[in-house]
Amino acid sequence: MQPQKDVLDRLQVTIASRKHATPDSSYVSKLFHKGEDACLKKVAEEAAEFIMAAKDKDKVHMIKEAADVWFHTLVALNYYDISLNDIKKELEEREGVSGLIEKAQRPQ
Amino acid sequence: MQPQKDVLDRLQVTIASRKHATPDSSYVSKLFHKGEDACLKKVAEEAAEFIMAAKDKDKVHMIKEAADVWFHTLVALNYYDISLNDIKKELEEREGVSGLIEKAQRPQ
Amino acid sequence: MQPQKDVLDRLQVTIASRKHATPDSSYVSKLFHKGEDACLKKVAEEAAEFIMAAKDKDKVHMIKEAADVWFHTLVALNYYDISLNDIKKELEEREGVSGLIEKAQRPQ
Amino acid sequence: MQPQKDVLDRLQVTIASRKHATPDSSYVSKLFHKGEDACLKKVAEEAAEFIMAAKDKDKVHMIKEAADVWFHTLVALNYYDISLNDIKKELEEREGVSGLIEKAQRPQ
Repeated sequence: MQPQKDVLDRLQVTIASRKHATPDSSYVSKLFHKGEDACLKKVAEEAAEFIMAAKDKDKVHMIKEAADVWFHTLVALNYYDISLNDIKKELEEREGVSGLIEKAQRPQ
Repeated sequence: MQPQKDVLDRLQVTIASRKHATPDSSYVSKLFHKGEDACLKKVAEEAAEFIMAAKDKDKVHMIKEAADVWFHTLVALNYYDISLNDIKKELEEREGVSGLIEKAQRPQ
Repeated sequence: MQPQKDVLDRLQVTIASRKHATPDSSYVSKLFHKGEDACLKKVAEEAAEFIMAAKDKDKVHMIKEAADVWFHTLVALNYYDISLNDIKKELEEREGVSGLIEKAQRPQ
Repeated sequence: MQPQKDVLDRLQVTIASRKHATPDSSYVSKLFHKGEDACLKKVAEEAAEFIMAAKDKDKVHMIKEAADVWFHTLVALNYYDISLNDIKKELEEREGVSGLIEKAQRPQ
């Protein structure tokens, strides 16, 4: 058996596993238990903290807040049974579209 | 030469390459050219749109908005010369910490 | 007939009057016409711009953005047929409650 | 001596008076003591809660959250020694500008 290479894939697995755990077993389980608004609110909150860290030109803090934005986006998505792969697929589709547009714009 | 497997890694490369391109060459180049506040504002904007899509229980829309949140977080990070790998490293460090805490909490 | 003294009261009247106007007659009519998400999104957007102006220590900009936050909150409330007076009543009720709590905490 | 008629004016006075109070004397004093980011973050947080209440079509909740947005905007402004009157002046100036534009657009 091979370990999953990417930390985001491992994070997705961990978050999904916390969905039906008891609320006090982890931070994520607690968030899921608090419900929809609690999960969603964290995304806006962390986005605001990311912006404030950026305005402070504090790169260490920015990285932490960016990680928090992504982490809480994943938690919120998993609340609705959507996973990391759905974001990746969406980004891949856009990539494809850009590719086509790029191709169309090439000089012949 | 091997292709980069993950769409997020490819996205990081693309965004970084747009940083010093002419403003009208792409959406990302234009954002970089508009400056800090324009890049940061998009993160908050997309977070709000993600929340609204979630409240609509519109999963297709949610995935698009989550992708937008991540995309614009990467653009904003790259504005400050921070990259996807920095988020991944941050998440990996937290993984390590959680692992230790988890271990400490195990029954003997 | 007496003029309304406060600019916020006058603003409430203006915004309400734009609700059933043709979309191209004003900025507010256009927002109402675009619908719920367009009105709501502006509140989050202006909140983010307010935060960025504050981090810049740019007081002139902060005042403009705070005015924008309040203006767009009023537009969004009016979209749902809620008015300035409803916010004022809510704040008055809290004032009353604080008063009671304050009273209860007084030494006898 | 005449009481201040408007709850917002009274709120401005209360918030300003809490600025140099001991941190544990009130919610507002505590916020001021926590500092800039704590005050600013609340504006984004309440904006997100307002949007979620609106998407729930919960008017009672919307009014509470709109009051929270305005309340925390005032707290944040006062942190930087800006007051309610500055927002009102800004809105009055816009009113004036709109008036002029309106006049210019009138048929002769």
